Amino acid sequence: MKTLRKPDEMRAWSLEQKRSGKTIGLVPTMGALHEGHASLMRASARDNDVSVLSIFVNPTQFGPQEDYREYPRTFDADCAMAEQIGMDAVYAPDADAMYPANYVTYVTVERLTEGLCGRTRPIHFRGVATVVAKLFNAVLPDRAYFGQKDAQQCAVVRRMTRDLDFSIEIIEMPIIRQPDGLAMSSRNRYLNANDRTSAVALSESLGKAKALMDAGERAAANVVGCVHRALSGVPGLRVDYVEVVDAEEMTPVERIGGTVLLAAAVFIGKTRLIDNIKYKVPES
Amino acid sequence: MKTLRKPDEMRAWSLEQKRSGKTIGLVPTMGALHEGHASLMRASARDNDVSVLSIFVNPTQFGPQEDYREYPRTFDADCAMAEQIGMDAVYAPDADAMYPANYVTYVTVERLTEGLCGRTRPIHFRGVATVVAKLFNAVLPDRAYFGQKDAQQCAVVRRMTRDLDFSIEIIEMPIIRQPDGLAMSSRNRYLNANDRTSAVALSESLGKAKALMDAGERAAANVVGCVHRALSGVPGLRVDYVEVVDAEEMTPVERIGGTVLLAAAVFIGKTRLIDNIKYKVPES
Repeated sequence: MKTLRKPDEMRAWSLEQKRSGKTIGLVPTMGALHEGHASLMRASARDNDVSVLSIFVNPTQFGPQEDYREYPRTFDADCAMAEQIGMDAVYAPDADAMYPANYVTYVTVERLTEGLCGRTRPIHFRGVATVVAKLFNAVLPDRAYFGQKDAQQCAVVRRMTRDLDFSIEIIEMPIIRQPDGLAMSSRNRYLNANDRTSAVALSESLGKAKALMDAGERAAANVVGCVHRALSGVPGLRVDYVEVVDAEEMTPVERIGGTVLLAAAVFIGKTRLIDNIKYKVPES
Repeated sequence: MKTLRKPDEMRAWSLEQKRSGKTIGLVPTMGALHEGHASLMRASARDNDVSVLSIFVNPTQFGPQEDYREYPRTFDADCAMAEQIGMDAVYAPDADAMYPANYVTYVTVERLTEGLCGRTRPIHFRGVATVVAKLFNAVLPDRAYFGQKDAQQCAVVRRMTRDLDFSIEIIEMPIIRQPDGLAMSSRNRYLNANDRTSAVALSESLGKAKALMDAGERAAANVVGCVHRALSGVPGLRVDYVEVVDAEEMTPVERIGGTVLLAAAVFIGKTRLIDNIKYKVPES
């Protein structure tokens, strides 16, 4: 497995693959890999001739008060996992290679980034869209794999890809969960034992809301209320947001119809966790 | 010569060229071609295996009070010129193909776009950077050709290309002028006979400033003052800006050193014209 450190080195490797007619899969990550990432890598390794794992803790998507410095870095373990799954290259640039002196260019995706995580993390999706555009131009993938856990990120990347005429298939893979339902996340490492006990309430609350929708509830406010009730009184837990939005536009809906995203973010102590479910109203 | 109307059609054509190992040159234009564009096309046709002329009057780079609707459209003549020069394809999408429903993604280049034309045309360079990124992703060029007449645009495109890790060589070609010095521009078509007489003052004023710098003047304010004096009293002419800026960062300089750009914009009646010179201080 090859390790590449600079955009031009990465691109030279990819152009060589393309010249021999090979398709390229990309799994963009910030490292600290878990089973969710593993599922993306397995899909990429299965569907493409060669696959690239990118590992880059992207400073432009962290706010000044966020966990850029603390974010877990586990490079050797990440590479071992990637190699074992059959990835062909790791693209791990450092911040200076990605954002050289006088860096001034940003990709913004409007409207889809106004609600949900965009409200509490105002520059987050500008950083995401920018770094993904850069990764696309360096890796030149045919397919790129993202996890539904970051559902708003998936919608933003899908729209950016369409709008900027990138010829890349964006593949959104299901959320991978712990046995008790907690969505896999690199940030779960921050949780102490008490936090971990409280954390399960997040996925449980979404499960209760899903049962309500399955029973026919179509008023978004009632579904949101159900999640809030299930989260109230959980030790150390503070709700950031609970929202029902259109699954593509990420804009709030009042009546549940078509496909919607029910998404929530909570703080448990200082750790911010997100989770979501997509709900498609059955055809009547 | 092939005409392509949609991003995916364009990309399919380009991928076919690339698969047979051919290099691609791109000349992005808004049509209404003149000798300046012809010089870009000749360079592209000379330096690349195949060359693409794009013609797209890009709505996102025009302000609400600007000349988007009036901008000259001369498609048949443009194609005749391109074919005669030996271009291989014309990419002429319509606005709906470029900006479909729910379009929300923009590329911004900060700092370089604050002064000069960016001051009077606040959304202009966001539109330029966005459409050029889209053209790059559809045409997949190895080299792209721009005219120095739009010097700030050249700097913005160069920086965007570097920052977003596009692997494309940006080639800036010299300004082509009428015999009396007026820089070629599609907007020269707007000038009536009196306007045309006044318009020559713009390039003349820059020539006087160059003579001053050649004589050793290094205070930017004096060079700018020289241009203003040369433009004052010209019938129907109103100055938009005269600035001396760093040739890459587009930020104002007080002392002339290294390479600077002296750039000016004027209104003649309702027509806005721009011109510039680059000045490199001789090594002492």
